[in-house]
This record gives sequence, C-alpha cells and structure tokens, in this order.
Amino acid sequence: MKKNIFYAQSGGVTPVINATAAGLIDSLSKNQGAFGKLYVGKNGIAGAINEELIDVGKEDKKELNKLLHTPGGAFGSCRIKLKDPIKNKKEFQRILDVFKAHNIGYFFYNGGGDSQDTTLKIANYCKANKYDITCIGLPKTIDNDLPITDNCPGFGSVAKYIAISTYEASLDVASMANSSTKVFLLEVMGRHAGWLAASAGIIKNNITMPPHIILLPEVTFNQKRFLAKVRETVISNGYCVIVASEGIKDSKDQFIASSTKKDSFGHAHLGGVAPKLSDIITNKLNYKVHWAVSDYLQRAARHVASDVDVKQAYQIGYKAISYAKSNTSGVMLTINKKNTPSYKWDIGYTKLENVANIEKTLPKSYIGKDGFSVTKKCKDYIKNLIEGENYPPYINGIPDYAKLKHHLVKKKLKKF
Amino acid sequence: MKKNIFYAQSGGVTPVINATAAGLIDSLSKNQGAFGKLYVGKNGIAGAINEELIDVGKEDKKELNKLLHTPGGAFGSCRIKLKDPIKNKKEFQRILDVFKAHNIGYFFYNGGGDSQDTTLKIANYCKANKYDITCIGLPKTIDNDLPITDNCPGFGSVAKYIAISTYEASLDVASMANSSTKVFLLEVMGRHAGWLAASAGIIKNNITMPPHIILLPEVTFNQKRFLAKVRETVISNGYCVIVASEGIKDSKDQFIASSTKKDSFGHAHLGGVAPKLSDIITNKLNYKVHWAVSDYLQRAARHVASDVDVKQAYQIGYKAISYAKSNTSGVMLTINKKNTPSYKWDIGYTKLENVANIEKTLPKSYIGKDGFSVTKKCKDYIKNLIEGENYPPYINGIPDYAKLKHHLVKKKLKKF
Repeated sequence: MKKNIFYAQSGGVTPVINATAAGLIDSLSKNQGAFGKLYVGKNGIAGAINEELIDVGKEDKKELNKLLHTPGGAFGSCRIKLKDPIKNKKEFQRILDVFKAHNIGYFFYNGGGDSQDTTLKIANYCKANKYDITCIGLPKTIDNDLPITDNCPGFGSVAKYIAISTYEASLDVASMANSSTKVFLLEVMGRHAGWLAASAGIIKNNITMPPHIILLPEVTFNQKRFLAKVRETVISNGYCVIVASEGIKDSKDQFIASSTKKDSFGHAHLGGVAPKLSDIITNKLNYKVHWAVSDYLQRAARHVASDVDVKQAYQIGYKAISYAKSNTSGVMLTINKKNTPSYKWDIGYTKLENVANIEKTLPKSYIGKDGFSVTKKCKDYIKNLIEGENYPPYINGIPDYAKLKHHLVKKKLKKF
Repeated sequence: MKKNIFYAQSGGVTPVINATAAGLIDSLSKNQGAFGKLYVGKNGIAGAINEELIDVGKEDKKELNKLLHTPGGAFGSCRIKLKDPIKNKKEFQRILDVFKAHNIGYFFYNGGGDSQDTTLKIANYCKANKYDITCIGLPKTIDNDLPITDNCPGFGSVAKYIAISTYEASLDVASMANSSTKVFLLEVMGRHAGWLAASAGIIKNNITMPPHIILLPEVTFNQKRFLAKVRETVISNGYCVIVASEGIKDSKDQFIASSTKKDSFGHAHLGGVAPKLSDIITNKLNYKVHWAVSDYLQRAARHVASDVDVKQAYQIGYKAISYAKSNTSGVMLTINKKNTPSYKWDIGYTKLENVANIEKTLPKSYIGKDGFSVTKKCKDYIKNLIEGENYPPYINGIPDYAKLKHHLVKKKLKKF
C-alpha cells in the first residue's frame, strides 16, 4: 500500500502559504501512482497530536483550486513548540503513533524557523525509532528571517503591501501637511529582523522622498536622534513619513512598546510602537501625527500579492512532491537566486540543522549609515521579490477566497 | 476674454479625489472654447488666500493622465474653515481680490460638509459684492456623510478596502485561534457616522461569519454587553472579529479613545480605540488580541479602488464643466441612484444650503437590532458602491502614481 502524506501549516500565516498547499496538491495529482492520500493536520502539528487529519480528497475541487489565491492558513495553523524529545517524549511518541496508524510515509511541515525545529525533532525521533518517513520542511515566513534560502515565501507579498501602503499614505500626508498632519507613522511586523520595515525603503529614490525614517530592530533606538531627524524633515520637507518595526529596542535592550508593562492601575500597557512614538513626537515637537498599525492586514493582504512570491510559494509545494519521490529527507526546501543579470530562481534544499531556530536579520550592508534608511543593495534585493501583481478573482466586489469543509479522517487511536 | 476656472481640493483626501480633477480636465479639453485657463489652488482654499494658483496647463500631460488612478490630493488639500464673513470679512475680500486679479469666473470646491460651507459662504460673498462667478461644490468624503447625494465619492473605495481587509484578517485569525490569537480588532475612520465600520458588514452572510461585532458611533458603547458578546463569540465560534469606528462613545457621550486626555505625567493619552478595546478584552477576558488601525492606509488605498467609485468621482468632475457652462451656481453636484432593478446612477445637483454643515449618519433601518451588526438594507446599499476593481498601472512592482510640479501662476497682488 502506498504511503500517505501528512502536510501541515505552522506559525504565523501568510498571504501565500495556501499557494504552497496548492502546488503540493497539483503536483500530487500528476504523481498519483507514487503516493497514497494527502492528509492535512488541522491546526498544524496539533492535527497530528489530536489525530485530526483533514482528508483533502473529500474537499470540493473548486474550493481547492482557490487555495492559490487565498490568504490565511486554510487548514488552520498553530503556535506550538514541541518540547525536548529526550525530556518529554510523550508528544513525539503520540505523533509517531498517529503517523503509524494512518500509514504516513511523508511529512511536510510548512513554517518558519521554530517550525523547522519541529520538523527536525520529528525527523530525528522517527529515525531513532526506526520509522521510515521522509521529512521535508517547506519554508514560509513574512519575516524573511530563515537562513540559507535566498528569501522566504510570504515576505515578497507583505513587502509589496508595505511599500505600496507607505507610498499611498505618503501622498495623503503630503496633501494635508500644509494646514494639518505633519507626520505619518506606520508600524509593521518584525520582532527581531527588520526586513518588513526595510521594504518600505524601495519607494524612496532620493533624500526628500518618503519614507524619511525607517526604524529597524537591528538599530538601537535613540529618542534624541529620532526627534532631531523628524524635526529636520518636517522643516525641510513639510512632512515626515516614518516606518517603524514593532521590535525596535532602546540602549538597554528593552522593547520600546511592550505589552507586558503595566500601568499604575495594574492594567497591561497599551502595546504598539506607533502610538508610543506618536505620543513622543506630539509631546516633544507638537506636530499633528497620524499613525497606523497594519498588524494582520499586512500579513493577510492577498488582494495585492507579489506575483513572484505566489509563484515561489507554489513551486515550494510543487517541488516537495518531487523531492519526496526521491526520498530526500531531513531537509528544508530553499529558494535559490540564480547568478543571472535579470532575477531568476529555482528550488533547492538544505539540511534542517542549518535552518532550525536560526534567525537571519538584515545584513549591515543593507542598512544606511544614518541608521534610518536602507541601501541600494537592500532595495535591489527586495525589488526582485515584489515584482508583478497577482490578483485574486472577485465576486460582487469581494475576493472569492476558498472555503474548506475540513472533513476529518476517522480516528483510529484513543484520545491523547 | 474667457473667464478662468479656480478648482481646489479640501478636507481629508480620498483614493479618488484626483479622479474628479481628471474628469474636470478631460471635460475642459473638450470645451476649450467656452473657458479660459484651469487654475488649481495649492493646498485648497489656502491657494486662493495666498495667491498660490497652480497652472494645470504647464503640467506634464502624461502625469495629468495619471490623476485618474492616483490617491491623495495631488494639488494639496487643507483643513481651513473660513470664519463668519460678516464678523471677519478680510479673508473673503482677499479671495475675491485674487479671483478678480486672475479673472476667475468659475469656482469648483471639492470637499465634504465643512468645505461646502466654504463654497456657500464664498458664493454669497461674491454675490453680495456683485462679482459674477459660478460656484459649484463637488462632493468628496470617505465618511459618506453628505446629505441629499445618494453617496459620496471616496466612500466606495474605502468601504471596499475595509471589507476586503476585514475578510482577509478574519481568515488569518481563524487560522491562528486554536492555539494563539482569539480576537482580531480593526479600527476604522468615522468620527460621527458609522458608514465605514458598517462596510465591513457586507462580508457577513450568516451569524457565524465575521465581523462578529461592529461598533458604530450611532450606538452607545456598553462595555458589559460588548465583553459578553466577545466571550460568547469566542466560545461558540473559536474566534471573534471586531470592527470599531474611531468615534464610538460611552453613555456619558465621551469618546472611548480621546487624544485630549492626559495621563498622570501630563502626557497626552495614547489615542486609538483599537488598543483601548484590546486592553479591555485582555484584562477582562484574558484572550490574546491582535489589533490594527488602518488610519491613512484606508483613505489612500487606491491600489484596490472600487470601479463604481472611480467612475462616479470622475463624472462629478466631468459634469462640473457642463453645469458651469449653463451657469448653474450655488449648488453641489450629487450622485442620484436611479430607480432601476440593477444599480444605475447619474449626476444631479442640490442647493449648497441643503448640504453645508449637515451630517448624514447611518439610518436606524441600517443598524441591526443587537446594535453590533448592519441590516440587509445597509449591505445592499454598500454593495452597489464597491462593485468592480479599478487597478492602477504598476512599474517594477509599485503603482505608477502622478507626480505634479505645481507650477504657480505669477502673483499679481501683495502678500496677504
């Protein structure tokens, strides 16, 4: 009997993680003889632990075809980090039991650095227990912080959204600055790596153009220098556009906006770098500030996805089947930039050990000398990844996104 | 000598206010014999007061053609409310002097309720001073709060952006809710009228679908009822999506989030309904909450404009020239819904007295009985206005928006 496939989505979702699922499903349909069924974990690895396996074969094909253009994690994702398999092997044994019970021969885990740690631990556990399974990590993270791979599926679309949103809001504040708002501030995701904040930098072609200030987690936040730069920009330019990474820290290595702080009533501090910085600017410089926090909006903005990003995410899923066929295990697939004058790429792989729990932050050569900007090298890198517009189809003015039914495979084991 | 036209943009800008300018320019080019030059006030009515008149004829035609798809106010807008012309006639006399000096025979003012008050005052002042000028107000506001007109140019595109963003973020939180975020909260504009918050409601086709809670300024915020509804939704549905209008108020008629409040250090309170409500939910219900504040992003999101909205904004500008030709003065143009089975509309007008300073809030029949939702009638109204996708052209992954040079006409008067 052909072995079945277990695929799951993990960590913060992206506008294109479902495109990876779409690539996998399409490739599988062309390789039906080599594999059994495709099961997807409901809510990531929790689906394996709870023996909640979605039978993709029972979903409506029309809806599955929409996965290519549907944001979010259509099968449910999770924020679960498995414990050390030596100290706490219960969860690992459970996953192995579920894999055995459902004849799983292939494990594809679609996630970022933390998730690839999970893939590695499961691969090692299965190996130590002599269970034959091909384990392949499929990269995904809007944070773009996985090493080895040239970039991560998900990043290009969010970078595009942030660059466009910053451009559009800049035109807005430029219109208003004469008699009203002088400063616009956008908070973007990125707790440790500044790739997303950096992406706003691609719309800037000269010193007067926005964004005038990019705040990266890689650069220590200095309030005095920041305020001087805001003031100088408003005076010389009439208005100032700031893009701030949520993860910026002060010289004491403390987050500028931390939700763990409490106010005098014992209430949790209102998080958000944007309102915090807005407050500082208003108090110290007395400018009218508008601020936005894009939060999930940036991470789910499939309506303006990068075509390159969609294609790469799809190919990651598509190629997973080829690599599984050749029993390439214990690896994460990578996007490799080719050494060509125009941007070309293909799919390769690296050992999971090389990527699990390793974060790739912005290289120094990508950060401007003033600490408030990005270099041409950085912009050239990001520009390749936001190329092309991949629009979803619409019905009555709203995108037509997939609605799955999550038919579960009959359970064979006792409750965990 | 043919009389010149003075056009200006006023108040908060929209994704399509420049489409109105585009319509005006196109129509003018077909009626060249009837009019002199087109001058645009730099920064709205401030352009008249400061005698800063942009000579549109000197702009690059290629860039002018991009106005149809460029957000923000390409000529600069303003937040200036003229004082009472009887008590303070200096500004009005100045505007009249500038109009006379530049042979202005037509005044088009593109704005919302406050701005139409300005149009009316200027029209009356010119009449009282026997200066022959045709004054026409061109509607524009994302808030959709102008009376008489069936809807306002700008609203449809922002409504579309909010509906899509809410849908996309809902797919995100639905993916994460099993082991992480349970509540997603989006703050949208609308200080007094809930049209924008209501627009998120069009994606909801049954009780389990998001948004689960819409908070409107028309409905008094009741924290106890709100928390009960959040809790009930998370328990029954797994996650809860909330769209909140920035202008919601408590039973004492106080804004929930006011930037005029000060903390114990004398600092201005961190504004924003979203972080405030997030804090309440976290403290009282202990759910993980993600929140977004779309601010200028919603108002400038030309990348996903409604086709109906773009066409209406364009026609308002286009028809302004026809009405000017027939010397229809002291009016604001309106969008009139035709009495047809499918949505059709044309451009009409109403007296400025009927619209100046009047706000149209959500009718009671548009608000659900629970106070947390909108009715079918409301959804049907909004659905017409978000129909069709009008995408801007792109270069290298970024929209190709207009860049104007703002060539000013030579001043003829002394500094004001």
